[in-house]
Amino acid sequence: MTKITQLLKKLNEEQVYAAVVSDPVSINYLTGYYSDPHERYMFLFLFAEKEPVLFLPALDAARAEATVSFPVVGYVDSENPWEKIKAILPKTDYPQVAIEFDNLNVTKLRGLETVFSSQFVNLTPTINRLRLIKSADEIEKMHAAGLLADKAVQIGFDNISLDKTETDIIATIEYEMRRLGYGMSFETMVLTGDNAANPHGIPADNRIENNALLLFDLGIAANGYMSDMTRTVAVGQPDQFKKDIYQLCLEAQLAAQDFIKPGVTASEVDAAARSVIEKAGYGEYFNHRLGHGIGMDVHEFPSIMAGNDLVIEEGMCFSVEPGIYIPGQVGVRIEDCGVVTKTGFEVFTHTSKDLLYY
Amino acid sequence: MTKITQLLKKLNEEQVYAAVVSDPVSINYLTGYYSDPHERYMFLFLFAEKEPVLFLPALDAARAEATVSFPVVGYVDSENPWEKIKAILPKTDYPQVAIEFDNLNVTKLRGLETVFSSQFVNLTPTINRLRLIKSADEIEKMHAAGLLADKAVQIGFDNISLDKTETDIIATIEYEMRRLGYGMSFETMVLTGDNAANPHGIPADNRIENNALLLFDLGIAANGYMSDMTRTVAVGQPDQFKKDIYQLCLEAQLAAQDFIKPGVTASEVDAAARSVIEKAGYGEYFNHRLGHGIGMDVHEFPSIMAGNDLVIEEGMCFSVEPGIYIPGQVGVRIEDCGVVTKTGFEVFTHTSKDLLYY
Repeated sequence: MTKITQLLKKLNEEQVYAAVVSDPVSINYLTGYYSDPHERYMFLFLFAEKEPVLFLPALDAARAEATVSFPVVGYVDSENPWEKIKAILPKTDYPQVAIEFDNLNVTKLRGLETVFSSQFVNLTPTINRLRLIKSADEIEKMHAAGLLADKAVQIGFDNISLDKTETDIIATIEYEMRRLGYGMSFETMVLTGDNAANPHGIPADNRIENNALLLFDLGIAANGYMSDMTRTVAVGQPDQFKKDIYQLCLEAQLAAQDFIKPGVTASEVDAAARSVIEKAGYGEYFNHRLGHGIGMDVHEFPSIMAGNDLVIEEGMCFSVEPGIYIPGQVGVRIEDCGVVTKTGFEVFTHTSKDLLYY
Repeated sequence: MTKITQLLKKLNEEQVYAAVVSDPVSINYLTGYYSDPHERYMFLFLFAEKEPVLFLPALDAARAEATVSFPVVGYVDSENPWEKIKAILPKTDYPQVAIEFDNLNVTKLRGLETVFSSQFVNLTPTINRLRLIKSADEIEKMHAAGLLADKAVQIGFDNISLDKTETDIIATIEYEMRRLGYGMSFETMVLTGDNAANPHGIPADNRIENNALLLFDLGIAANGYMSDMTRTVAVGQPDQFKKDIYQLCLEAQLAAQDFIKPGVTASEVDAAARSVIEKAGYGEYFNHRLGHGIGMDVHEFPSIMAGNDLVIEEGMCFSVEPGIYIPGQVGVRIEDCGVVTKTGFEVFTHTSKDLLYY
């Protein structure tokens, strides 16, 4: 069953027989075709009983036609896109049409209101739900992206030196990965000492501190799928307190990873890590959620956090990333992303989590 | 007059006395504060007769308070943001409230509909219009970003070699700029030979072709402002046809730059370049608009294209980038961004446009 068929089946259960997909990543997920229309328009129209139509800027039409097996309609800037859409769609008077509330802007909503005489319902939860459970093929791509993150962070480790800055190390990591043909999935973070201890630290031309911790947070985009990992290593001989905080964060990270299996809730996973840090008296310094979903977007549904009663299922992919940030003293975060298996949690990144010394 | 005051003045002329700004770049433009709230919410509420309120995730509140001089309200994930907004706003029953139609998604629209008992009107054209005319301070930042693009493209030129790939050269440019503390404003393009002749060429591990043209399209983000430039250079001894196409493109680019001054229209600027290429019989190979606005976003209002009757005014900044792409034969694009002055057009990038040989 294709992803489009799966989506239509879910919509049919809610008596919705037409949908408009507007998020380029959702369109890629459903069709394998990706482009960013920038300020122009791209919509995937889906119908319960008719074939899909992909509507996009004319300059992208040839590439789209080579990728998808259903009609592609291009428009040029001098055409009114809404009139053209109305003319090409087989039917526009469905009682309900699902649109991506989290993606579609008001300009596009007003445009679609001129096309459809329908009530608009929210497609975002249905797409999120579909994207939430990864297929075997997707999991393979997540593993591949994870191995590349391991490679990238090792390049970072190999370049640690007291005469370099955070920015120097980032530049080298990105250079080496770029030469291999890979881009980063988000802005690489390399944070030294006090900057790592600031939960909002931003990399700059700070020289790598001696006898301190050094934090790396990075990911690679590969074949449409994203990785994301964090490691914190020792430079020189950090004092015992810093090492103790590292071990506490690691204990919390492993506690959460060990806890994950189908049937527990997102909130309980967060608590599995948080309770370790709270019991040690540092709860106030772990001031963010434990994790986030990951896949074709580096941050996607769901949040692994207090208050989220989502039941964990096999095939969900998310991050486990407790952090402890004590301003002026020490900052640690340790993060792996992984997939929920029948019995547990399999991570995509395999770089050692023992405190490494450089 | 601050930018917020200017915006409110324009809205007052339309009898609109409240506005909600949601685009992080618009908020940065108006307040000097920038952050990306990701999947959370950030709104700047503006009122004709009351001070502004910046509403954002609690974790960003301290940094925002250090930047802006009016009230900042943070919310945590466990709070209902819409109820909190309704509670903190001085008044929510304005007849009309302006929102950014091009930025605000339907989820946020539905949320704001629970806050305001108002008709929503479109703020996007008013913000675009305000951002369109750059202040002296902004123009200075655009010049600074342009000089950095000149530096970046020179690094690219210095690394041209037949044993390197497009990706190698991109990696080096980005590495050197990153070490200087600068990020790129968009994905750097280095395209060799046939790949440059493809209007949708994507950089890859193609070795630099000899006796061919090599295209560089890049920009730097600096102090919130973007640069964007394209140069095409010769590697070895391209044949006479390639050199002729280069000269034709350059003639078109200079014709448009020379034509620009207050009072002409965007459409006429496009035609000034296009007619040169059309007269030579290559019009079909110049298959995109001449240019785009630039500022805090690398692509912003307006489009310099046929059909746009916008009258050019002093202080507008945009690109002039004719291209000629003859598949399998040759691809050339030459681009400078600049600002409209009292009498003409002053470019931000100064790298030579004579055909350079490497």
